[in-house]
Parts: sequence; structure tokens; C-alpha cells
Amino acid sequence: MKKGLQLGEQSISLDKPVHIMSSAAVVGPKEGEGPLKDTFDKIVEDATFGKDSWEEGESEMMKETVLLALRKAKLKSEDVRYLFAGDLLGQLIATTFGVMDLKIPLFGLYGACSTMGEALALGAMTVHGGYADTVVAAASSHFGSVEKQFRFPLEYGNQRPMSSTWTVTGSGAFILSKEYGDVVITGITTGKVVDYGIKDSLNMGACMAPAAADLIYQHLKDFDRRPEDYDKIVTGDLGIVGKEILCKLLSDQGIDIENVHIDCGMEIYDDACQDTHAGGSGCGCSAVTLAGKLMNELHKGELKRILFVPTGALLSTVSYNEGQTVPGIAHGLVIERSE
Amino acid sequence: MKKGLQLGEQSISLDKPVHIMSSAAVVGPKEGEGPLKDTFDKIVEDATFGKDSWEEGESEMMKETVLLALRKAKLKSEDVRYLFAGDLLGQLIATTFGVMDLKIPLFGLYGACSTMGEALALGAMTVHGGYADTVVAAASSHFGSVEKQFRFPLEYGNQRPMSSTWTVTGSGAFILSKEYGDVVITGITTGKVVDYGIKDSLNMGACMAPAAADLIYQHLKDFDRRPEDYDKIVTGDLGIVGKEILCKLLSDQGIDIENVHIDCGMEIYDDACQDTHAGGSGCGCSAVTLAGKLMNELHKGELKRILFVPTGALLSTVSYNEGQTVPGIAHGLVIERSE
Repeated sequence: MKKGLQLGEQSISLDKPVHIMSSAAVVGPKEGEGPLKDTFDKIVEDATFGKDSWEEGESEMMKETVLLALRKAKLKSEDVRYLFAGDLLGQLIATTFGVMDLKIPLFGLYGACSTMGEALALGAMTVHGGYADTVVAAASSHFGSVEKQFRFPLEYGNQRPMSSTWTVTGSGAFILSKEYGDVVITGITTGKVVDYGIKDSLNMGACMAPAAADLIYQHLKDFDRRPEDYDKIVTGDLGIVGKEILCKLLSDQGIDIENVHIDCGMEIYDDACQDTHAGGSGCGCSAVTLAGKLMNELHKGELKRILFVPTGALLSTVSYNEGQTVPGIAHGLVIERSE
Repeated sequence: MKKGLQLGEQSISLDKPVHIMSSAAVVGPKEGEGPLKDTFDKIVEDATFGKDSWEEGESEMMKETVLLALRKAKLKSEDVRYLFAGDLLGQLIATTFGVMDLKIPLFGLYGACSTMGEALALGAMTVHGGYADTVVAAASSHFGSVEKQFRFPLEYGNQRPMSSTWTVTGSGAFILSKEYGDVVITGITTGKVVDYGIKDSLNMGACMAPAAADLIYQHLKDFDRRPEDYDKIVTGDLGIVGKEILCKLLSDQGIDIENVHIDCGMEIYDDACQDTHAGGSGCGCSAVTLAGKLMNELHKGELKRILFVPTGALLSTVSYNEGQTVPGIAHGLVIERSE
């Protein structure tokens, strides 16, 4: 069912691909000790980024990341028409105070850890539609601010079950434009809220896996593609537990992604040395893995086409304490080398 | 400086107007006793909407509003390609749990009380660009959930200064489409974060007025229009205090909007009888005033063209308690009768 740009039930096929002019990834010290350390643009030793609080530190991190992406694209903030950005904190304070000084018209977004996908999707549509020549898409998360927001203060030193993930301190930013750049966005699949009734906020992988499965299934159907049409299908932060559920759910639908699937949460840390349990998580996890490792491999031609599927767990301490479930959402982007 | 659809520094002129097929406004009991009571589609007597918590009540309210807007447009949720929605609660839980059952691909948005404008802007761009034939844009706020989120539990019964506003319990939803409907969106101006250094969370009008002034100034410049080109310039929830600051700031720039300006926050309650002090506020305030009163007047031809400027104050309890300022943001939409 193709209807102009609209493809199937939930997808868009961009007839004129949207180019990624540049990307930047800035991370904290723990990420800088992990397996992807050589792919990041900047590793900061002080996780407060020289500020007085985790939240202000996260804001500073996002600002530095956007400025770095702009610099790599040889642009100034006034050259950019819109900023699509979000983070995990209540009322997006990391974003607000981070991007304020840049003075770029802002669309604030919340898709939990899927926000990088939401920002890239809306940014790409905006450029493709001619509403802007150049936009920035950015997302961030910070271990200190997020643990305080969602779970326990770090000082409390609570034990973490093996199903828990470690929130990435990191921010990724992408400059999207009508031209310039050998990596392009060619397709978008937008996710629905999917709820399997899971209530464990320390098992986010299980909460998000059904949304990822739903998104990937719908994406392949809408585009009439098979998993093998992608060099990698990349989920955001399912971790070890979520990955297993994802593969099982898709396998039940007759779809085998095991050979092409990777999860950013399982790439960013080395659990054996870093005690991160099921993997990394947070908006920053998929954002910096795409901005660093995956963009590098696309630039070099080691990857030709990927499906990027960041995943979000939709909860707050209020919803959690009121006994609500933790539903998930995922957004999908086809990112490939420009031919 | 016209460049295709892009107009000036921050605006878009939609060459093919996007139609508002239907709108719906659902409110709580206090709003149902105010001056706009006859313009709302549904007034609910029980502000929990039959649920166990304010938050779940807000979710139910948003769901009912979207379903009502769909019904008025003679559509089902599966006829809609995207939902653009947000609320004021941390991690958008009112939206998540409200729209989950609708199974519409979701872009979650946060623009504080400007969210209705952000949703209409992105929704209109999406329809105009051909990415969807039909989308829903929705926003909500709830006095009970918001006071708990941002200030004091209701049970505490704190005194409220005269500069404070009363959060509207209400949700507005709009169905946007390529055709059908005598009211259309023809222009969009997207706001930046504007910070005048104000730190008083009980004087939101003062926090948001500079952003509204900045947006209106830029809008008139981008479109090369004067205030008189609009029957009304409608801000979201500045209240009495914010309105005065807005008019002063624009007057300093040589722009007089006094004759055409109204503020949704000053329309929705009658302070003399309802003890609401400076006026109404919240995403729901501008959403239900537009969906009810203003849409009615546009349908009837009493208004030909308005500039709708919902305004948001960007803070969380964390940012506030860490001594941060309360910056503002505003989004502008040109809404007019289709000729």
C-alpha cells in the first residue's frame, strides 16, 4: 500500500534522502573506558562537566555536543532553522537549559530513550518537506541525573539486579540537511505505545522489547523488506534481557533477526570489567553509539544500510508508584550510504 | 526574505493551507462554571474522571477528548496516521497512558504550556508535507496532577499570591487534514527559549511574557504584517501580570497589540467569583479556549484570522530547587477561515 511518501501503516519513504552533514558524541568517564571509546568525539573526565549539579552538567554536555556537531559541519547556530531535542528529565530541563544560549527555534521532544529516533524522524521530515535547509537533532542522558530522577539517589548505594541497565552519560547530535554528507536517512517508521503489562522499572529491557518487536515487524512489512536487507538492525538499549525477548517475539512471527541484530546497550560497556549488568541505557546510549561507531562504519562503507531503532520505556516515578505498568515505544530510521 | 515555504528567520508560510476537520474540548468542573462553559464539548463533574488518581484522570480526559474529536470528524483512530501530543507531567505520563489504547503512532512533545502550539505546528507540517492525510494534535493539563507535580499537594492548602495562575483541568484535540473544514492553518512561527532571569514559579506570567513578545515580534517581521492584520492575537496563559509585561515589551519595540490582544488565561475564569487570581494556565488553558470559543467564532465568521500564541514556562521542581531561572517559550500559528 504505497501512497506518495506514505508507506504501509506507519512508515514514510523519503524520495529525496535527507543527508547527515555531521554527527557528534560527547560522553562521560565510564563510557570513555568502554569498548566504543575510540569512536567518541569527546570524553569528559568530570561527569558534572564543571557545573554544580548533575542536571546542569547534562545541560552543558548537550550544549557542547550540539556545538561540536555544528563545528564539524562548519556551521554556526544561526545557520540552523530548528532544533529537535529531548532528554529523560522531568520537563526536559537538561535540554531547556542546555540549548537556551544557542537561540535556535526549539521543538522539545519526549520519547523516553527513543528520543534520538523521534528527533531524527521529525528533523528529517522537516528538511525533506522544505521547511528548513538545516536542522539539528539531539538527545542526552546522564547517569547521575537519571538515577536521581527515576530510582534512588546515588549516595544511597542501592543494589542493582542483574536485569538492570546502566544509564549512559552521553549526548549525540546530528546536523541534517538537504545536501552534503555521504550518509542519508531514507525511511522512517513511527512507533505506537506498546504495553505488555510489565511493572519492573529495574528490567527496562523487558518493558521495551515488545515495542521494538512491534516496530521492526511493522517496518519490514511497510517496506516489504527482510532482515537481510539491512547490514544491521540496531536497537537502542534493550540489553541482554531485552534482546532475548525481542528475538523470541519476532521469531514467533517468523522473522529471524539474530544474524543482523545488535543493541547499543550491549555495545557501549564491557560488563565483565565495568559491572553494568544487562547493558547501557538512556537516550544517550543509542545517540552516541549512532553518532560514533555506526556513523564511522557507514562513512567507511563497512555498513551500507542499517535500521536504527531506539527504544523507550514510558514511566515516571509517579506512574510507577501509582502501580502503573511500564509501556514501551520505539522509532525506526533507515540510515544508509548515499549512492 | 522569502525562500520557498520558509519565511524570515523563524516562520513557515503554508502555500496549501492545512484544514482543521474538527476540534474537541473536555474540561473539569471549575472550568465548566466559568465564562466559556457554553463553548466546551464536555464538562465533567468528577475531576478524577472516575479514576483512582489525578494522573489517571488526566489520561482519561485526554483519551476522551481525542475520541470526541475523532467522532466529530467521523473518523476512527485507525484513520489517523500520527498523534502529536503532550502534557505537563514528568515523562508525559498523562499522554502515554491516555493515548495507549488508541494505537496511533505517537510523537510525544514537551513545550510546557506551549505544547498545543507545538503539536499543531508539527501536525500541520506533517499533513502539508504529504507524510499523513490526517493527524491528531492534542494537549492536556490537570489542576490536581500539576499542583502536585510543580508546587504543593492540594491537601497542604498553601496560600497563593495574586500573581499566581490556576492550572486548567482540560484537554483540547484537533484533527488536521489536507481537506475538509472551513478553518485552516496557514502559517507557523516557532519559538526559541527566552530567559529574562525570573525565578518565581508563582509568577508564570512574568516568566513567559518575554517569550511571547519575542515570538509575536518575530512573527510580524517574518510575515511583514501588523497587529491589525489579525482580528485577535491570542496568547496562552500569561494572565493579568503577564499581559501587562507583554504589551509593555512590544510597545518598547513600537508595536501596539492592545486593541487585538486577548489571553486565554484571562478568558477562561471569572476571578471575581472563582478566586483564580491572575488567570488560568496550563497546556489545557489555550487548548480548550482554541478548541471551544475561538474555533466557534472562526466557524461563525466572527473571527477571520487569528494569531494563536500558546506560551510555556520551562521549569521543573528540580531546576527550581537548584536555583535555576524559569525561561519561557512560545509557538505561533496563523489560523483563519478558508476562503
